[in-house]
Amino acid sequence: MPSKGKVCLAYSGGLDTSTILKWLLQEGYEVVCFLANVGQEEDWDQVREKANKLGASKMVITDLRREFVEQLCFRAIQCNAIYESRYLLGTSLARPVIARAQMQVAKEEGCQFVSHGCTGKGNDQVRFELAFLTIDPKIKIIAPWRMPEFFERFQGRNDLLDYAAEQGIPVTSTKAKPYSMDDNIAHCSYESGQLEDPSKPPPTDMWTRTDDPMKAPATPQDVTIIFEKGLPVKVISEGKEVTDSLELFIFLNAIGKKHGIGRIDIVENRFVGIKSRGCYDSPAMTILRDAHLDIEGLVMDGKVRSLRDQFVTHSWSEILYNGMYFSPEREFVENSLLFAQRRVNGEVRLRCYRGNCYITGRSSETEKLYSEEESSMDSLVDFSPVDTTGFINIQSIRLKKYGMQKLEEGSGLDKA
Amino acid sequence: MPSKGKVCLAYSGGLDTSTILKWLLQEGYEVVCFLANVGQEEDWDQVREKANKLGASKMVITDLRREFVEQLCFRAIQCNAIYESRYLLGTSLARPVIARAQMQVAKEEGCQFVSHGCTGKGNDQVRFELAFLTIDPKIKIIAPWRMPEFFERFQGRNDLLDYAAEQGIPVTSTKAKPYSMDDNIAHCSYESGQLEDPSKPPPTDMWTRTDDPMKAPATPQDVTIIFEKGLPVKVISEGKEVTDSLELFIFLNAIGKKHGIGRIDIVENRFVGIKSRGCYDSPAMTILRDAHLDIEGLVMDGKVRSLRDQFVTHSWSEILYNGMYFSPEREFVENSLLFAQRRVNGEVRLRCYRGNCYITGRSSETEKLYSEEESSMDSLVDFSPVDTTGFINIQSIRLKKYGMQKLEEGSGLDKA
Amino acid sequence: MPSKGKVCLAYSGGLDTSTILKWLLQEGYEVVCFLANVGQEEDWDQVREKANKLGASKMVITDLRREFVEQLCFRAIQCNAIYESRYLLGTSLARPVIARAQMQVAKEEGCQFVSHGCTGKGNDQVRFELAFLTIDPKIKIIAPWRMPEFFERFQGRNDLLDYAAEQGIPVTSTKAKPYSMDDNIAHCSYESGQLEDPSKPPPTDMWTRTDDPMKAPATPQDVTIIFEKGLPVKVISEGKEVTDSLELFIFLNAIGKKHGIGRIDIVENRFVGIKSRGCYDSPAMTILRDAHLDIEGLVMDGKVRSLRDQFVTHSWSEILYNGMYFSPEREFVENSLLFAQRRVNGEVRLRCYRGNCYITGRSSETEKLYSEEESSMDSLVDFSPVDTTGFINIQSIRLKKYGMQKLEEGSGLDKA
Amino acid sequence: MPSKGKVCLAYSGGLDTSTILKWLLQEGYEVVCFLANVGQEEDWDQVREKANKLGASKMVITDLRREFVEQLCFRAIQCNAIYESRYLLGTSLARPVIARAQMQVAKEEGCQFVSHGCTGKGNDQVRFELAFLTIDPKIKIIAPWRMPEFFERFQGRNDLLDYAAEQGIPVTSTKAKPYSMDDNIAHCSYESGQLEDPSKPPPTDMWTRTDDPMKAPATPQDVTIIFEKGLPVKVISEGKEVTDSLELFIFLNAIGKKHGIGRIDIVENRFVGIKSRGCYDSPAMTILRDAHLDIEGLVMDGKVRSLRDQFVTHSWSEILYNGMYFSPEREFVENSLLFAQRRVNGEVRLRCYRGNCYITGRSSETEKLYSEEESSMDSLVDFSPVDTTGFINIQSIRLKKYGMQKLEEGSGLDKA
Repeated sequence: MPSKGKVCLAYSGGLDTSTILKWLLQEGYEVVCFLANVGQEEDWDQVREKANKLGASKMVITDLRREFVEQLCFRAIQCNAIYESRYLLGTSLARPVIARAQMQVAKEEGCQFVSHGCTGKGNDQVRFELAFLTIDPKIKIIAPWRMPEFFERFQGRNDLLDYAAEQGIPVTSTKAKPYSMDDNIAHCSYESGQLEDPSKPPPTDMWTRTDDPMKAPATPQDVTIIFEKGLPVKVISEGKEVTDSLELFIFLNAIGKKHGIGRIDIVENRFVGIKSRGCYDSPAMTILRDAHLDIEGLVMDGKVRSLRDQFVTHSWSEILYNGMYFSPEREFVENSLLFAQRRVNGEVRLRCYRGNCYITGRSSETEKLYSEEESSMDSLVDFSPVDTTGFINIQSIRLKKYGMQKLEEGSGLDKA
Repeated sequence: MPSKGKVCLAYSGGLDTSTILKWLLQEGYEVVCFLANVGQEEDWDQVREKANKLGASKMVITDLRREFVEQLCFRAIQCNAIYESRYLLGTSLARPVIARAQMQVAKEEGCQFVSHGCTGKGNDQVRFELAFLTIDPKIKIIAPWRMPEFFERFQGRNDLLDYAAEQGIPVTSTKAKPYSMDDNIAHCSYESGQLEDPSKPPPTDMWTRTDDPMKAPATPQDVTIIFEKGLPVKVISEGKEVTDSLELFIFLNAIGKKHGIGRIDIVENRFVGIKSRGCYDSPAMTILRDAHLDIEGLVMDGKVRSLRDQFVTHSWSEILYNGMYFSPEREFVENSLLFAQRRVNGEVRLRCYRGNCYITGRSSETEKLYSEEESSMDSLVDFSPVDTTGFINIQSIRLKKYGMQKLEEGSGLDKA
Repeated sequence: MPSKGKVCLAYSGGLDTSTILKWLLQEGYEVVCFLANVGQEEDWDQVREKANKLGASKMVITDLRREFVEQLCFRAIQCNAIYESRYLLGTSLARPVIARAQMQVAKEEGCQFVSHGCTGKGNDQVRFELAFLTIDPKIKIIAPWRMPEFFERFQGRNDLLDYAAEQGIPVTSTKAKPYSMDDNIAHCSYESGQLEDPSKPPPTDMWTRTDDPMKAPATPQDVTIIFEKGLPVKVISEGKEVTDSLELFIFLNAIGKKHGIGRIDIVENRFVGIKSRGCYDSPAMTILRDAHLDIEGLVMDGKVRSLRDQFVTHSWSEILYNGMYFSPEREFVENSLLFAQRRVNGEVRLRCYRGNCYITGRSSETEKLYSEEESSMDSLVDFSPVDTTGFINIQSIRLKKYGMQKLEEGSGLDKA
Repeated sequence: MPSKGKVCLAYSGGLDTSTILKWLLQEGYEVVCFLANVGQEEDWDQVREKANKLGASKMVITDLRREFVEQLCFRAIQCNAIYESRYLLGTSLARPVIARAQMQVAKEEGCQFVSHGCTGKGNDQVRFELAFLTIDPKIKIIAPWRMPEFFERFQGRNDLLDYAAEQGIPVTSTKAKPYSMDDNIAHCSYESGQLEDPSKPPPTDMWTRTDDPMKAPATPQDVTIIFEKGLPVKVISEGKEVTDSLELFIFLNAIGKKHGIGRIDIVENRFVGIKSRGCYDSPAMTILRDAHLDIEGLVMDGKVRSLRDQFVTHSWSEILYNGMYFSPEREFVENSLLFAQRRVNGEVRLRCYRGNCYITGRSSETEKLYSEEESSMDSLVDFSPVDTTGFINIQSIRLKKYGMQKLEEGSGLDKA
C-alpha cells in the first residue's frame, strides 16, 4: 500500500494517542510523533521508546518551557489575564506554543498532515486546530475523535484496551483514571470522570501542583518580586534570589506548592457552548498575578487601568481561552497592553501562608505616581481643597437634572 | 444674632465633627445632628449625649442596616462588584444609604443645609455631596474642610484640641490614632497616618472585622449558601440556618471573622485623581462574592456573563466608587443586571479555613444549563463531533487570511 | 413510500425554492409552504398557485408587517442600531419575525421539519436556523444547499432549469438575474452576481426602494417626527399626519424614496468570516435613525448615552446581524435599552432633499435636560465659573504626573 | 509697579482677548501674544498690528496647519473618530496643537503664565488648560472669564465696549455677532447667541465652509482617494492629483465646499455636563471619514474592526472631546489603533453630489481579505457547505437551553 502521506501526531504515550498512532499507521500514513515539554511530569524516555516501538518514523521531543513562560505566561501576567473571574488559563496558554512547535516539526519533517487526540467536545481541539490552520492555511488535519470511522469503532475504554491487546500496545493500567489531567508548568487541570458531578468536591488526593493548605507549614514564607515593564525579573525569598525567568517561575511554583496557593474548582463556559467543571492548581501564576495587580496599583495611571481592565484584560483572556492566540485581534489588543506596562516597575512583598499570599508592601524607585504627601488627608501642600468644590459642583450639573426628573416622576430619590 | 438657617450635620461624636458642630453653632446656624447606623461599632448613647451637650437641637440616629444590606450590599453581590480587581466597595456602598437618610432628616427637620466632616482630598465628600445634590438639587452644602475660614484655622490636631479645650468639647484621647477607620457592616477600612507608606505592612493589631488568619481555627468550617435570583436567601453552617437577609449577613460576618477571610491591602486610584493606600476587611462580602461567582458558573449563560462582566460589573463598580449611585447610568446598567440574575438560583458549598473560602460544590434544582451528560467528553448523546469540524473550519476562514498575511510579511507565525 | 414526515418550507415561488419543494416531495416528505409578508413586492396569488400546483399540501402566507415594524424596526431605531458603522440591518431585522412565524406554522401543521433555500455561505441560514433551534430545540432542519446529495446534483442554474423542465416547474425567466435581492419594508438588499466586484459601482437601475438622488425633486420636503419613549408615534409632512406605526413607516418610506434617501454600498464582514459586498436602500429606517439620534441629543443624559452607544448599540447590532435575536444576551442588553428610552420624548424637524435629510430643529415639551439659560456662554445664572477652575485642577492632578513622566523620559509633550 | 511676571496670551484680535490683553497689562503683567494659524480665515497683519498697538511685548503667529492636519485630523480619520455619533471633533482636534505651540512660545519667551479668553462654561477652557498643565505641570494659568474680578467687571458686551472706548481698543463692530464661530481647516463651528434655541434652524447664510447643498452644482464630481496605512496619500479628481497631505486636505475642503458636504446641526453633551447646540461644517473630514470607513470594509479583519469600533473609536473620540489629548489613555488606545491601520491600503472612489458623497467602488492591490471567489454564493471552491451545519449546531447548543428555559417559563419564543 502506498503511503497516504506523512502525519505529525501530538503523541503523549497514553492509551488514546497510542491507539491513534497505530490506527494512522494501519490507515497507511507515515507518522512522526511530537511531544512538547511544557513542564509536565513525564518519563520522556519511555514515551520515546513506546513511539518507536509502535512504528513511528521519528519521535521529536521539544523543550518549550522557556518560551511558554516568557512569551505566554508572562504576557498573561502583564495582562492580569483571567477567564470568567477565576481561571488563570493555564491550558489555554500552553496550546499556542505547543501548536507552533508541532507545526515546525511538521514542516521540517515534510508532513502534509497534523493529528491530535483531543475529543470532540472540548476547547483544546479548537485551540490546536485554529493555531494549525492559521500558521499554515494549507495544512491538513486528522482529528480521529471527530471521524465516524474512528469514534464509532472506539466507543469506550474497553474498545481501546482490546485494540491495544490486539496490536501489542503496552498498557500501564487497565483501569480508567477517575478524571483526566493536563499538566504544565503553569498549572495542572483536572476534569471529566468523577468530577463531572459539580456538587461533589474533588478527591483530596487529586491536586498535584499544590499541597493541601490544611497541611501547609505553620510558618509563613515572605517573598519579594521585582517587576520591570510588568515582567517579573527577580524573586527573593528565604535568602534565595532568582533572576532567570524560567528559574524564577519554577521557584514560585515551589513556594506556592508548599503553601497550597492557587487552587480553584469552577464550572466554566467552554467555547463550544457547553458548561464544564474544571479544577486547576496554578501556584506561580496565582502569586505573580496577585503581585502584578498590586504593583499596578502603585504605578499605573487610573484611567489607563480602567480601560485596560475593561478591554484588554477581558478581551485578551477570552481570545486566549477561545484558541485565537494566532489572530489579528490578539496582536491588536497587545499593542496597547505593552504600552500600559512600560512603567510597571517596582517591587512587591508578599507573605505566603496556607493557601493565600498576602500583600505586605510595595514600592518603586523609579515611578512617582503615588505620593505620600499628596495622598495624605492632612497635607494641603500643592492641593487646594476649594478645587474639589468646583469638581463636585460641575459633576452635579448633570445629576441634579436626573434628581429633578425623579421628583417630577414622583419617585423621589429620597425614598429608600 | 438671627439664625443663618438650619443645618443637618453628619455627626459621629469624634473630634472632627464635634468641632464642626460647635463651629457651626458659633457661626450662627441651628444644627440637627444625624448619625447613621450602618453596622459600625459605636456607643450610640454617648454620641447622643455629646451632641446634645454641645448644643445640637436634636440628634437623630437611624438604623439603616437592613436597607444597606438588602439594597446595596446584595446588589453589589449580584453584580460581583469589585473596584480595580480587588476592592469590594464597602465604604462606597454605605454612602448612598447614609446620604439618603441624612437628606430625609434634613427634610423632616426643615434644614436648608447639610454638612459633613469629610476632608477635601477624599472620595467620600464627592459621594455624599453628589448624593445630596441629586436627591435635592436645591440643598445647600457646608463642607468645612474645604472652606478656607475653617481649614486655615484648624491646621492640625493640636488646633482641634485647643478648640475642644476652649469650647468644652469632651475628648477621649489627645493622641491621634495612627490611622483612620471607617467601619460598617460590609467592612472596616483603614487608611491615612502610618498607612500612608505603602511599602510598610499595616500593624498586625489593626484589623477589626477579621481575626488573624494565622491564629484562625485549625478546623475548617463548612457553609452552604442558597441563592435566589442572585440574592442569598439562606445560609447554613454548623447546624444553624439563617434566612433573614440582615441576620445571614451578620452570620457570615461572624464566620468570616473567625476564619480571617476578606483582608486586602491595596493602593487604589481615588476619583479625584490621587492614589491612596487602603486596607479593608470584608468577611461576609468576600464569602458572598465568591459563592455568587460560583453559582453563576453553574447557571448563567456564558455570553450574558461575558457581556455582564465587561459592562455591568465594570461600570457599576466604577459608578459606585465615584459616588454616582444616584445617577441615570446606575439605573441604566442595573436594568440589565437584574435580568441577568433572574435564573441565578442554586446552592454553593464552601469551606472556610484560615483566610480562604474554598468552593466544595454547587448545585441547582431549577436550572439546567449544566448537564453532566453533555459535559462528558465520553458521551456522544445529543452531540455530533463532526459538527465541531465545521465550527472550527468556519472560524478558521478569517484566521487563515491573517496567517497568509503574516507569511507574506515574512513574519511567519511558526517562529517563536 | 411512506412519508418521511412533514416539512414546513420557506417558499418564495422562485426557481430555487420551487426546486427544493419538488425535491422534498420526491424524497418522500409532505410539504407545507410558508411565505412571510414583510412588506416585499410580491404577486401573492401567483406564489400560492405555484406552490399548490407543485404539490404542496398547503401554502400559508402571513402578513407580518406590523410586528416586523413595531417589534424589530422600531427597536432598532431606539437602539440607533447599525452594523460596522453603516448597515441598518434591514435583512437581519426581518429574519426573527419570519422564523418565528414559520415555526408557528410548523407547529400548527404538525411538521417535524423546517426547510429553507438559503445558501451555505451566507448569514441568513445562520439567522434562520439559530432562531428555529432556539424556538424549538427539537425541530429538525433540512438545509438542501448544505446537503451533498442536493448541492452536488444542482451545481448551477442550468441544472435547476433542466430539473424545472423535467418536473414541470414554471419558470419565468431562463436568464439568471445579474444580482440577488432581498426586499422587505425596511430595505431592499442587493448582492452577488455582478456586484461581487467591489470596485465597480452597482447598475444605476438597480435600486428599488429609493429613486435616484440626482433625479429627486428640486424642492425639499419638510417632515416632523414625534417620539415617545424613543418610538416614533407621529409623522407630519405636507399637511399629512400619520400616527399608526405601520402607516407612518410606509409614509416615511414613500418620502425617503422620492428624495433618494438611504442608499449604501459597502463591503461587510459576514458572521461566517467571509467579506461580501452588499448594497442596501433603507429610506424610512435612515430618516428615523437620524431623527432619533437627534432627539436623544436633546433629551438623553450624556453618560447614559455614552454607555448605551458603547455597550447596547454595538452589542445589539452585532447580536442581530449574527442571527442571535432569540438569545439571552439580546434580552439582557434590551433591558437597559428600554430604560434609556423612557424619557426620549420630543419632536424633530427634518428637511429631505436629494439623498439627505437635514435636521432643522428639535424640541421637547416634557424633557428639560437642555436649558438655553444654562447653555448660554453669557449667562452666569445658577453657574459659578470658579467651579470650573476646581473641576480642571482636579482633573489635572493625574495628568500632570503623566507630563512629568514624559519630561523625565525626554519625550516632552511640548514637541510636535 | 514691578511686573507681576510674563504672560503668554492666546490672542485673536477680537474684542474679548483685546480686553484681556489690556487688562493684563493694567494688572501689571508683561504680555506676549500668540496666535495659531490652524487654517482659519484671518487678517494676520491686522491682528499683529493691533496686539502691538495695545502694548503686547511681542505677537507670535505660528502656522500649525500641517501638524494639525497630519497629527490630529489624519489620526481622527484613521480612528473614524466621531463624538455622539455625529460630531467630527473639528474644534477638539485643533486644541492640542494650539496649546502645545502656545506652551512652546511661553517657554521660549520665559513666561510664567499662560492666559486665554475661553468662557467658564465651555469645553475649550478644559481642553486648553489640561493641555497646558500636562505639558508643563508648573505653568500658571490666568483664565479671566473665571476670575470674579474680571467677570464681575465685564458683565456684558456693553461693559467691554465701554472699556474699549476708554482704553483705545479698536473695535470693528459695536454689534454682537448673532452667534459665535470657531474656524479652522477641519471645520467651522457655530454656537451661542441665536443658535441657543435648538428648535430653530440656523440662518441659511451662516455656513462658511460649505455652500448650500440646494445651490450646489447639478453635475456630480468624482473623487478617488488612495490610503496607505489608513492615511490618505493621494486624491485625484477632475484631472488633478494631489499627494501632499496639507494640499490634499485643502483640495478635499474645496470639493466638499462646492458640493455642500459635511453640515451637521446637533445638541451635544459638553464635558462640564451642560447640553449645548452646535452647528459644524467639515467638508474634507466628512469625505475622508466616509472613504476611510469604506476602505476598511474591504481590507480590515472583522473582529479587529469590531473591537476597534467599540474600544478605540469610542474612547479616542471621548478622550479628545474631553480635552485629554495629552494623556496616557490616549497613547494607550493609539498603540492598538496604529496596529489596526497597518494594512489599510487601497483606493476608494466617491461621487460628490449635493450634500452627499456616494461610494462608487473600492479596491486594493496589496490586500487580499476580500475574495470574489470566496464571497460568491455560487462557488464552492475552498468551501464546504457542510461545515456551516456544524458551525450552526455548535452555536445552537447554548441557545437551545435558553429556548428550553423560555418554554419552561411559559413565555415560549414562538409567540410574537
